[in-house]
Amino acid sequence: MSNRMWGGRYESGPAEIMEEINASIDFDRKLAPQDIRGSLAHAAMLGKTGILPQSDVEAITQGLRTVLGEIEAGKMAWSRSLEDIHMHVESRLRELIGPAAGRLHTARSRNDQVATDMRLWMRDTIDAVDGQIADLMLAFAEAARAHAGLVMPGFTHLQSAQPVTFGHHLLAYVEMLSRDRGRFADARRRLNECPLGAAALAGTSFPIDRHMTAEALGFDRPTANSLDSVSDRDFVLEALAAAAITAVHLSRFAEEIVLWTTPQFNFIALSDAFTTGSSIMPQKRNPDAAELVRGKTGRVAGALQGLLMVLKGLPLAYGKDMQEDKEGAFDAMQTLSLCLAATAGMVRDMKPNADAMRKAAGAGYATATDLADWLVRALGLPFRDAHHVTGRLVGLASARGIGLEELSLAEMQGVEPRITDEVFEVLGTEASVRSRRSYGGTAPDNVRAQAEGWLARLRGSAAT
Amino acid sequence: MSNRMWGGRYESGPAEIMEEINASIDFDRKLAPQDIRGSLAHAAMLGKTGILPQSDVEAITQGLRTVLGEIEAGKMAWSRSLEDIHMHVESRLRELIGPAAGRLHTARSRNDQVATDMRLWMRDTIDAVDGQIADLMLAFAEAARAHAGLVMPGFTHLQSAQPVTFGHHLLAYVEMLSRDRGRFADARRRLNECPLGAAALAGTSFPIDRHMTAEALGFDRPTANSLDSVSDRDFVLEALAAAAITAVHLSRFAEEIVLWTTPQFNFIALSDAFTTGSSIMPQKRNPDAAELVRGKTGRVAGALQGLLMVLKGLPLAYGKDMQEDKEGAFDAMQTLSLCLAATAGMVRDMKPNADAMRKAAGAGYATATDLADWLVRALGLPFRDAHHVTGRLVGLASARGIGLEELSLAEMQGVEPRITDEVFEVLGTEASVRSRRSYGGTAPDNVRAQAEGWLARLRGSAAT
Amino acid sequence: MSNRMWGGRYESGPAEIMEEINASIDFDRKLAPQDIRGSLAHAAMLGKTGILPQSDVEAITQGLRTVLGEIEAGKMAWSRSLEDIHMHVESRLRELIGPAAGRLHTARSRNDQVATDMRLWMRDTIDAVDGQIADLMLAFAEAARAHAGLVMPGFTHLQSAQPVTFGHHLLAYVEMLSRDRGRFADARRRLNECPLGAAALAGTSFPIDRHMTAEALGFDRPTANSLDSVSDRDFVLEALAAAAITAVHLSRFAEEIVLWTTPQFNFIALSDAFTTGSSIMPQKRNPDAAELVRGKTGRVAGALQGLLMVLKGLPLAYGKDMQEDKEGAFDAMQTLSLCLAATAGMVRDMKPNADAMRKAAGAGYATATDLADWLVRALGLPFRDAHHVTGRLVGLASARGIGLEELSLAEMQGVEPRITDEVFEVLGTEASVRSRRSYGGTAPDNVRAQAEGWLARLRGSAAT
Amino acid sequence: MSNRMWGGRYESGPAEIMEEINASIDFDRKLAPQDIRGSLAHAAMLGKTGILPQSDVEAITQGLRTVLGEIEAGKMAWSRSLEDIHMHVESRLRELIGPAAGRLHTARSRNDQVATDMRLWMRDTIDAVDGQIADLMLAFAEAARAHAGLVMPGFTHLQSAQPVTFGHHLLAYVEMLSRDRGRFADARRRLNECPLGAAALAGTSFPIDRHMTAEALGFDRPTANSLDSVSDRDFVLEALAAAAITAVHLSRFAEEIVLWTTPQFNFIALSDAFTTGSSIMPQKRNPDAAELVRGKTGRVAGALQGLLMVLKGLPLAYGKDMQEDKEGAFDAMQTLSLCLAATAGMVRDMKPNADAMRKAAGAGYATATDLADWLVRALGLPFRDAHHVTGRLVGLASARGIGLEELSLAEMQGVEPRITDEVFEVLGTEASVRSRRSYGGTAPDNVRAQAEGWLARLRGSAAT
Repeated sequence: MSNRMWGGRYESGPAEIMEEINASIDFDRKLAPQDIRGSLAHAAMLGKTGILPQSDVEAITQGLRTVLGEIEAGKMAWSRSLEDIHMHVESRLRELIGPAAGRLHTARSRNDQVATDMRLWMRDTIDAVDGQIADLMLAFAEAARAHAGLVMPGFTHLQSAQPVTFGHHLLAYVEMLSRDRGRFADARRRLNECPLGAAALAGTSFPIDRHMTAEALGFDRPTANSLDSVSDRDFVLEALAAAAITAVHLSRFAEEIVLWTTPQFNFIALSDAFTTGSSIMPQKRNPDAAELVRGKTGRVAGALQGLLMVLKGLPLAYGKDMQEDKEGAFDAMQTLSLCLAATAGMVRDMKPNADAMRKAAGAGYATATDLADWLVRALGLPFRDAHHVTGRLVGLASARGIGLEELSLAEMQGVEPRITDEVFEVLGTEASVRSRRSYGGTAPDNVRAQAEGWLARLRGSAAT
Repeated sequence: MSNRMWGGRYESGPAEIMEEINASIDFDRKLAPQDIRGSLAHAAMLGKTGILPQSDVEAITQGLRTVLGEIEAGKMAWSRSLEDIHMHVESRLRELIGPAAGRLHTARSRNDQVATDMRLWMRDTIDAVDGQIADLMLAFAEAARAHAGLVMPGFTHLQSAQPVTFGHHLLAYVEMLSRDRGRFADARRRLNECPLGAAALAGTSFPIDRHMTAEALGFDRPTANSLDSVSDRDFVLEALAAAAITAVHLSRFAEEIVLWTTPQFNFIALSDAFTTGSSIMPQKRNPDAAELVRGKTGRVAGALQGLLMVLKGLPLAYGKDMQEDKEGAFDAMQTLSLCLAATAGMVRDMKPNADAMRKAAGAGYATATDLADWLVRALGLPFRDAHHVTGRLVGLASARGIGLEELSLAEMQGVEPRITDEVFEVLGTEASVRSRRSYGGTAPDNVRAQAEGWLARLRGSAAT
Repeated sequence: MSNRMWGGRYESGPAEIMEEINASIDFDRKLAPQDIRGSLAHAAMLGKTGILPQSDVEAITQGLRTVLGEIEAGKMAWSRSLEDIHMHVESRLRELIGPAAGRLHTARSRNDQVATDMRLWMRDTIDAVDGQIADLMLAFAEAARAHAGLVMPGFTHLQSAQPVTFGHHLLAYVEMLSRDRGRFADARRRLNECPLGAAALAGTSFPIDRHMTAEALGFDRPTANSLDSVSDRDFVLEALAAAAITAVHLSRFAEEIVLWTTPQFNFIALSDAFTTGSSIMPQKRNPDAAELVRGKTGRVAGALQGLLMVLKGLPLAYGKDMQEDKEGAFDAMQTLSLCLAATAGMVRDMKPNADAMRKAAGAGYATATDLADWLVRALGLPFRDAHHVTGRLVGLASARGIGLEELSLAEMQGVEPRITDEVFEVLGTEASVRSRRSYGGTAPDNVRAQAEGWLARLRGSAAT
Repeated sequence: MSNRMWGGRYESGPAEIMEEINASIDFDRKLAPQDIRGSLAHAAMLGKTGILPQSDVEAITQGLRTVLGEIEAGKMAWSRSLEDIHMHVESRLRELIGPAAGRLHTARSRNDQVATDMRLWMRDTIDAVDGQIADLMLAFAEAARAHAGLVMPGFTHLQSAQPVTFGHHLLAYVEMLSRDRGRFADARRRLNECPLGAAALAGTSFPIDRHMTAEALGFDRPTANSLDSVSDRDFVLEALAAAAITAVHLSRFAEEIVLWTTPQFNFIALSDAFTTGSSIMPQKRNPDAAELVRGKTGRVAGALQGLLMVLKGLPLAYGKDMQEDKEGAFDAMQTLSLCLAATAGMVRDMKPNADAMRKAAGAGYATATDLADWLVRALGLPFRDAHHVTGRLVGLASARGIGLEELSLAEMQGVEPRITDEVFEVLGTEASVRSRRSYGGTAPDNVRAQAEGWLARLRGSAAT
């Protein structure tokens, strides 16, 4: 046990179960790049401020680079008895450069070190996820431009409500994802302060330069309160909340993929690349990826909920409970990344079945609103009256099993005598979508312009 | 049933259970001010664009103001058969001004109307909560300035770790709350787009001016996609996430209040105003408010989780499931408001027990780190070696049941011969906190300056 | 403040915010019947054991009955200054019978009192919910018997997989609900121990008879540890978990209702009683009740999650946080009750569209498995080989846009020469379902027998 | 791709991201023992019923045993292209025994296979956890017996309320854990039905004997509805709910360990085996294991919440979303197991500091209730009046900074003239706990008897 960093006072080793529950190396090794990046900045600062002699700094720097290389090459021997990534790095450094390794921990603590690592990791991860969201937006916007004029039913309550265009529908997701990016960007900006130098919790008496390490690590500034720096994990919560909301957005599109690929809807087809078969039913083409994207929402939201619960009621400053900030966050962000990639794949893979969409758009009296609006515009009926007249006309057509446009003018005038044959112009689905020119409406020209606008903005920001 | 707005086609009324599960008037009446504000803006726009004659607009405007007055005066007769706030307002308006009331719903739908109401409500609520958070920060900052130099134990793992000042500890919460305000501000900015005019889901063929209504209602712009406008509630999720994180922060301070008011800690006292007694144990002074603030975190987080679950997997556009966005949000934001007020009250009420804090700060070898740092600075030991030496000295003192400062120089030199009597200067708690001058550290001058800085920034933004 | 029960030592009243956050009377008045039932049993026991004179017991008993009558008649004046239901009852009792009222609280505390009230309430509520679940099972079983032979597509991944019968599908919910009843029954059995007499937390020195009060209140026995009795709320958690699982089950059927009532599926129709219209789209028949049942799952699960979070990390014994056990539980159980009633209504209301179901059952090569099984049975192919042969036959038919049964024998033999025309007997959906005679399989006779079995068991236990 | 089981109809392989999101072999390999156990039972049944020739069954049986041996020996080559554990086993079996392997999948599907595996796994896991809970109860009961008479403060609101004994406090956890065992036992009983033979969803036309496989696998009976068998995962939800409630119980004791090991409380000491040091503060003895047990509650509850969300709104029957039932459940149950072991370790390790407990028990007027009860018993005061008198006496003592027992009789009589010196007998903490002889009360004899009773019941059921 002589290599235990904090073992000076300890006479016997920890119970085996203690080692098992306490060690974090099985998962925090993921932080190795961030941990070493932080140590390099810390060492450089200790040198610059004269706290360490330059020779030590050079040895440490050289040594840390070697350790990183070894880890990247899969040569590090991980061991639970060395608990965590910090101790593994330091222990290996000591083997490589001797006692100078022991000077690296001057003016810091594992508390500020792990808080720094986790912020660096989350920042890196947000950057990666941001690129993926942008790429998914691009996929949606490209499909929206291609299908800006393709008429499909717009649903409310999953009942056909009014015709919209497929492009318009897809752009709704671009809007959602754009807000998701905004949430991640805000989370990134807010977390981008450097806790290094907060030490255990109170700051340090060494003349460190926290602005220097903050800058070296790409942070906007050092954190302003050392207790807060090591105690809070709200930056993880905020990122998980953004991830959960994004996952909910993806789950909604996933549900639509599942619906649209049923024989009943048959609005789109996915290729073999995004469907699977059945071990017993050879005809099946199951949209597994969409179902998994939908299902995985649960684990992302569960990770958020789990961490809210972990942090609830913890007194300041650092408590070991906070070690639980990692596994859930690692899994949730990895899951989100997978879901984004799978969704982008499906968007690029799907082929709309234009005939089925158009046919469905015309069914179910989907232009009844157009009729009601025409009654208002052309005949000056108050909307509520127009609504009632339309309801009666729909009832008439429905009773006969025909479409609104199949009613005769005479039949219509039986309900409202002032109706003219001009009315038939608004009863087609193409006319309907063309007429919805209000800002944000589904008129194909609107949709095309919106899609072009998004494409222009997205080129450049999307990951490739 | 003749007054049912959508009843034209219906032959029989809904089942009783249907009315009970479907009606939202029991809770969405809370949105009456927002609903009428939105209708006033909509009516003005319909007039300006010539969709409605000015005379109708005037009648509608006058009528809506009367309805609002009646609601505020408690004179509205609420009824489940009129389902929701929108229908109540329109129905009453019709009684007041006749058929013109039926023109108000031109070019809109309950879908965009309720989305607008909910955004207005959330914006109003965020503004109120923001003022409360600012006020709580003010309370913390004032207490921090007053106690910038009061030494208390800084805890990690709830074990005494290093001395800090009470002011420093309190400022940690100012930092957390400042980020909470940031999250609410970002949520507010992101939600501040106007869905009015998205109509049912597809936009409208009426020549409406959505920029006009957006501006009139204080929104930054209209929403860009009509389907998205009526389908998403991510703005509620984001606000609930901000609320849940804030609630977690409050729960941590609440836990500390509970701890600090135990006879065992005895760090602070709360007055009669914030404690309760027991029906059977007359001596009790229970910190009920703190316990409730801690406990209520659960319901705020539960509301967030609930809504994530509601929205998961919903196909576009509006589904009735989304009616579930309200009660949880109303309750969670109201709960947060209550917790903020109670916490501000406790912060202003609490009296620190300086003697107990100071005494505890000195116990438990809390200046061991100072000793280790001294060994590094004065004797040039690598930190890890200094750590081991300190561990052995603590062991020595602990075995004899005395403080570090009570060891003799000879005893110390028995462990590390180079120690000089200069060491005794770093073993006091006052010296310890004074030495932690690193940026963000606990040195009283730091703390005082930080508190002053916050006070200057907060004056003006806090609610009064 | 003289009427504050615990105010003896207090000099000033609580802060207004304290009263607002602390008072529970706004919601715990719901417990009035249970509270008075508990007090009546306690008073009778105090008399029987000689702790109170019989004259006091009689006065108390008479008085409590009067108070209950007043509450039921809506005559109680509720006031936050009297905090909770216990104090309201005692205070009113004192007005009615004078100082003897003060003897009722002998040998008990609000801690054991509220724990008793909450158990009684939860037991009553579980009994009511159990009756509702049984009634819903009855509705499902009746519909299952009526449609035991109606063929519909069985879905996996929402793709048509194999034909099943509508009755078989409905009976799946009877199984789920039966387990839900089992969970509630287990929760009821486990909670059915009486905490009364645990007093504040330590028991009492009065010679009370806890077995007597337990029996009088219908509990199986008194709780065995006084600290546990007032500290835990796992019985609320368990009931909420049962409620959340039940709600998830209901959400799945609700999703199916939403799907089945789309024009695309058109498997069932709901009457006007369970659909609503649209304010702008007169043709809509929205399955709002189903959507609300689906959505409300979120708040039930949120209540469970919220209370788990409340209780996490609370030291023994009673803490005020536990007051948060009520509102979420009240709302969740009421919500579940509403959802059960609405679902039962929909089950009884829905009319299957047999033609659409049958037609869909035959589409999509749903009898491919039957073909594969025939290849195994009749030709002795290993299942995996039969699976491959079937896949190729489906590919052939699919390429030509025809059904499997429309392939000629020659075409089939081109893939597998040993196929005989006996194969055509297994390619029909009616034959398919009839053949699935394995235990629990979808063969109509199986389904009819299962439905009959359930109906026999349910008659008697369902609420009426 | 020729080894893909369901690839007959597929022309191209899945996209890489599809393989990554779809493959479950990274985690479901954990089910290998259960999967093979199920296949062995299925094969035996196929032989017994004559569906397969006995020679095939023997080859399959032999082969499966070889595969299991290889997996246990770490010799299986896992590959994502074989998706899941079922395909790995079958594929390897085919290599070992040739085409007969293809007959094993007769009359079953992956849908019923995985449902069977998961039930077997959960049953095994519940059995293991049950043993651990019993062992933890044993540890608590042993400690309770040893400290049945050790007086400590009983807390409410974390304020000293009334004296209790340490043994009594520990037995409260035995009660909680006993209910936890009950919940797991109920979950086990309810899940113990065999889905094997439900096939894909509809049952099968092969003359299988589901009772035979059910019995062979230790199930009580086969499931009664094939659709339900492959669609539901409520048995996972129920087990996770039981786990979450157990975790909450453990979190409460963990919080107490954290509190009790502070210098401020100093009620217990943990040895080096269950504490850790600090990298910078050598004096620290941190109760990390307790903090981790407390924190890990979040991930267990998060797993429950996540799966509730996964299952919400899924139409029948099997959907791929359900694959998400595994990782969360695996992690949560493993986490609970770890927490149980760590808690049992801490209970056996902790040493109470009797002096500190006793001293704290006497502070804070903890026997005020005893005084009030004496006033009722000895002087006949109504409880409420006794409560007020006691409040005034506490106020008197508190103002002078002395204990109740240090007031003179004259001082007491100044408040209530009828008080006699007999009162002093009830003011000691030992007398207080001895007096609480009511059933479940804290009197040492009660506690000792309860502990003995538990020990007698637990011997035999606890894991060793």
